[in-house]
This record gives sequence, C-alpha cells and structure tokens, in this order.
Amino acid sequence: MPDDPGESFVWTTLLRDAGPGSASKLRVPPGDDAAVLADGLVLTQDAFIEGVHWDARFTGADVGWRLAMANLSDLNAMGARPVWAMLSIALPKPLDQSWVEDFSLGFSQALDHVPLIGGDTCSSPGPKALSVTLAGRLTAEPIRRTGAQVGDEIWVSGQLGAAAGGYYDIPELRSAFLRPTPPLSLGPALAERGLVTSGMDLSDGLCQDLHRLCAASGVSAAIDPAALPLPNALMTRPAPLMDAVGFGEDFELLFTAAASHHAALAALAAELRVPLTCIGHIQSGGTPPTLGKMTWPVGWSHFGPETT
Amino acid sequence: MPDDPGESFVWTTLLRDAGPGSASKLRVPPGDDAAVLADGLVLTQDAFIEGVHWDARFTGADVGWRLAMANLSDLNAMGARPVWAMLSIALPKPLDQSWVEDFSLGFSQALDHVPLIGGDTCSSPGPKALSVTLAGRLTAEPIRRTGAQVGDEIWVSGQLGAAAGGYYDIPELRSAFLRPTPPLSLGPALAERGLVTSGMDLSDGLCQDLHRLCAASGVSAAIDPAALPLPNALMTRPAPLMDAVGFGEDFELLFTAAASHHAALAALAAELRVPLTCIGHIQSGGTPPTLGKMTWPVGWSHFGPETT
Repeated sequence: MPDDPGESFVWTTLLRDAGPGSASKLRVPPGDDAAVLADGLVLTQDAFIEGVHWDARFTGADVGWRLAMANLSDLNAMGARPVWAMLSIALPKPLDQSWVEDFSLGFSQALDHVPLIGGDTCSSPGPKALSVTLAGRLTAEPIRRTGAQVGDEIWVSGQLGAAAGGYYDIPELRSAFLRPTPPLSLGPALAERGLVTSGMDLSDGLCQDLHRLCAASGVSAAIDPAALPLPNALMTRPAPLMDAVGFGEDFELLFTAAASHHAALAALAAELRVPLTCIGHIQSGGTPPTLGKMTWPVGWSHFGPETT
Repeated sequence: MPDDPGESFVWTTLLRDAGPGSASKLRVPPGDDAAVLADGLVLTQDAFIEGVHWDARFTGADVGWRLAMANLSDLNAMGARPVWAMLSIALPKPLDQSWVEDFSLGFSQALDHVPLIGGDTCSSPGPKALSVTLAGRLTAEPIRRTGAQVGDEIWVSGQLGAAAGGYYDIPELRSAFLRPTPPLSLGPALAERGLVTSGMDLSDGLCQDLHRLCAASGVSAAIDPAALPLPNALMTRPAPLMDAVGFGEDFELLFTAAASHHAALAALAAELRVPLTCIGHIQSGGTPPTLGKMTWPVGWSHFGPETT
C-alpha cells in the first residue's frame, strides 16, 4: 500500500486505530500486493487521480485501461484470478459524456468480462478521482513477498523500462506507457505449479520493488545489469539502465525461484508466450544488495534519482 | 447508485460496456442500496469528496465517522452485518498529519471493530477524495426495494429532518448532521424476523427515496404528514416539513410491512430501543402518491425544491 513516508503514516495510523481484528482476519497481512482473507478472497484497491496518475496524453480509454490493469496486476502478483470489480468515480461538472464513454470502453476491455458489480459516482470540484476495488480467487497458495531464499534465482517477466520509454515519448514504446499489458496468465500459473518462493508486481520499478521484496524476505540480492531485458528502443535514452530500474509502471512480475526450477520456468515461458529472464540471485541478508559492481541504488525512484 | 441524470448516464454506460455477466453474478441487481453476490456477500461503495460531501464545519473525525456510517447504513438497509472494509484516501501535499489522526479516530470508532483489510493512499492535487468499500453478510433474505404490496404500512425509524436542522445550525441538531447514528441493529433484525416487504435507507430524503421505493415496487404511497416524526427543535425553521422530507442525510430506515405485523414492529421498536413510526400506506400504482392533501412533491431534493 504505502509508496512514501506520508503514505506510511496514513496506514500506520489507520491500522493502529482499526485494532488487532484487522490483521487477524487476513491470511496475508497488510503490506503485500493484495489482502487475502481467511476464506481465500483476494482484494486490492487502487486510487487513480487526474494529474497524479495520468496526464493530458491519456485518452479516457487509456485511463480506464490502465486503472483496470493496475488492479489486475496486483491480483496477478498474488497468483489470483479476478472475480468481480467495483468502481468509484468522481467527475467535474458539467459531465463530459464522451470522456465517460471512452473511459468505459477502455475499462471494460481491460476487465475482459470480469463483472462490474457496483460502485458509486458523484461530482468532483477538482480533478477526476477514481478508485477500483478488485476481488480475486486463488486456486493455490498465494505468492507473497516473504519467501525468497538464499541461492534462489531472481526472474522478471517481459521488458523493463518500456513504460519509461513511452513516458519520454519514444514512439515504439508509447503504448507500453498508455496501455500496459501485464502477463495475467503468469501469476496464477506460477502459483498453481508451485514454482516460486516469492513475488510481486513491478509497479514502482525494480530498484524500489526488489528492495521491498528483499526487506520482506530478510535477504539481499545481486543483479546482473547485462541480463536486464531492456527494449531496444530505449537505447536512444541517455541512461537506459536508470529508466529500466528506476521508473516503474511496467506491471511485469518480479519473482524468485529455486535454481532447480530454471528449466521448468523456461518451459513455462514458452508455453505462455511470456518472456521470462533470470536477472540475478538472492544472497544472505548481511550482504549489501548489488547491481553489477554498484551498491543497489535504493534512492532511485519514479522519474529519476530522488533529490532529497 | 445514481442520484442525478449525470450519474445515471455514467452507470448506464459502464454497465452496458461491462456486459451481461455483471448482472448475472448478482442475486440483487444494480439499483438497490448494495450489491448481493450469489455467495451472499453484500457489497457497497461510497465516494466522499471534500466540498461535495462535507464542508468546513466537519472535523477530520466527523468526516471519518460519516463516511463509515454512510456505508454501514447501506448494509443496514439490506439487512446485512458488516464483515470488512477497504479505504482509498487521496490527500493534498503536504500531508496534514493531525487531520489524518483525527479522521482515523472517527473512522475506526464508527466501524467499531469491523476490520480494515486494505486500501490505497496517494496524493491529490485538489480536494481530499475518499472511497470506502464495505462488505457484509446476510443471515436471511436481503431487504430489497422491490417487494412493497398494496395495503402495506409504511414505516420509518428515528426522526426525519434532524440532519437538515443540524445543517441549518440548530444547536440541538448539529450532531445529527455531523455524526449520524443509523439504527444498525434494525436492518438485520427486520430481515431475520421476516417482518418487511421492502426497505431502503433515507440518505436522500423521504421525497426522493420513497419515490424510488415505489418505482422499484410498481406501487404508489399515501403519507400522513401529521404522522412524520419531526424533532421538536426543527419547529423553529420556516418550513420544517420540507426539511424533514426533502433534505436527506438522516440515514434512518424506510420500510414497508403488512398491517398484520404492526404489533410485532411496535414490540421490536421497544426491544431495540429504536423509535419506529407508521407514516402511511402503500396504494396501487395507478394512483398518484400523496403527502396529505398534496400530490407527492418528487421535485423536492437536497437543499430545497429544485429550481429547474
């Protein structure tokens, strides 16, 4: 849930006041990509605010697509399949009907027959403000952030940095930014076949997300920068590696697996037609994480190195 | 879900594009106070936007309380008890930590140990924008808007117009506006004892809400204005009756029951210590609805008669 210290403060406060009952209802406690209830229902929620989560380059259909995909990606990260969605939508007056029609089309295309069971709509005196609640079901144990073991291989799906390239207006990568396509068949397959020890989705970039996974698992990581699957079109950028690990928004999966499953994962990649790349390995928690010869640049985040 | 033509347009569009699967998943289709899934899970969602749903008179704790109570009231209307909540919260930067702490306190007090299982937080470039998803469980058939029968008595809980009085700064009624207290034991009791034919909560005022209930049930209504339970403190207002039926925000229950259950409902009121008042009866759909000698003033809405 939290992405920055302000968000951490909000959730620490809310969960403290909500009391111990909140955590005891959950099979997977707060802090993973989605909550898992005792009865196996998996729940995620994403707020999506105009000017924060999207800019003027997004059509209504792009916004709808992306909002749905961000939530679907959270379920994918847990190994769950979606079962229903709810939508809150606050829009300025007068209502822009053509934006609504466009949004609805992109949203429903991305949801691909996942039923929309309800929600709420109201006016907004400011920006468009949306929130989706998406529920899923597991057919196996959920994939969590906590299980990475020393010696595990570290894998990513797809390419890293495609969304960054789109954000910086590289024509071939624009659609990766506006219309992300998370590998939604991959998460459930990984969970059902018991191939992974931990996993999450790459929404904030490898730098931050791998750091979170390692922290949750109490381990460290060594990444081979030459192994990272960067799109060719990104090579025109001044620092493609930084885009690939620091920008985020790719909605690919990051996961760890025993080295003995290497061949099975390669076969799964071919079966699902989802590129999977081994990019490094897990090492013990006492060792600083590394990116080649560099210490892991945790401070890198969306839109480049943090200035504070 | 929809409160005005703009909202109707949004939901008509979204449900059309979502396809027939959305309705087929539901035991109670969209249009009631909450959705009921085939497995009995009851779901409601309310968006809550600064400047639309609350003004400067609300403390953070008032906002948290009211947001929780608006959702709890929707479950109450269906006869369901809450089981978990999720919260989306978009806040301007820099984060106002004392507002967050105050909000959290009011929110958790209103939820009263209903577990908060997750959600999302982010920054907002405009007003504070919140959305709650609340799930509940039924132990009986849900109370719906569709079952009112000709000859049924029409009942309301509590008092009508208390929130209006608070909005207009009548000191004795201020807390009814800032801190509504829906009769949360009543909905489940009505459902479990099979005493009602239809029901909903009074969030938009008796004028609009009774009109909706009659439309859903294909019937009409005759209300006795002298029977309406108005707070004494409201009598200082120029048109207390209009406040009582046109303002809304009382979060009391409106329901219909066979006249043969009159004594059982009076006994239930005493048992739960929730005032219940019979305010009229259901008549056939061909008859215009009436408020005493007047035709039912459907055009009345929040903040008085509509000017268009």
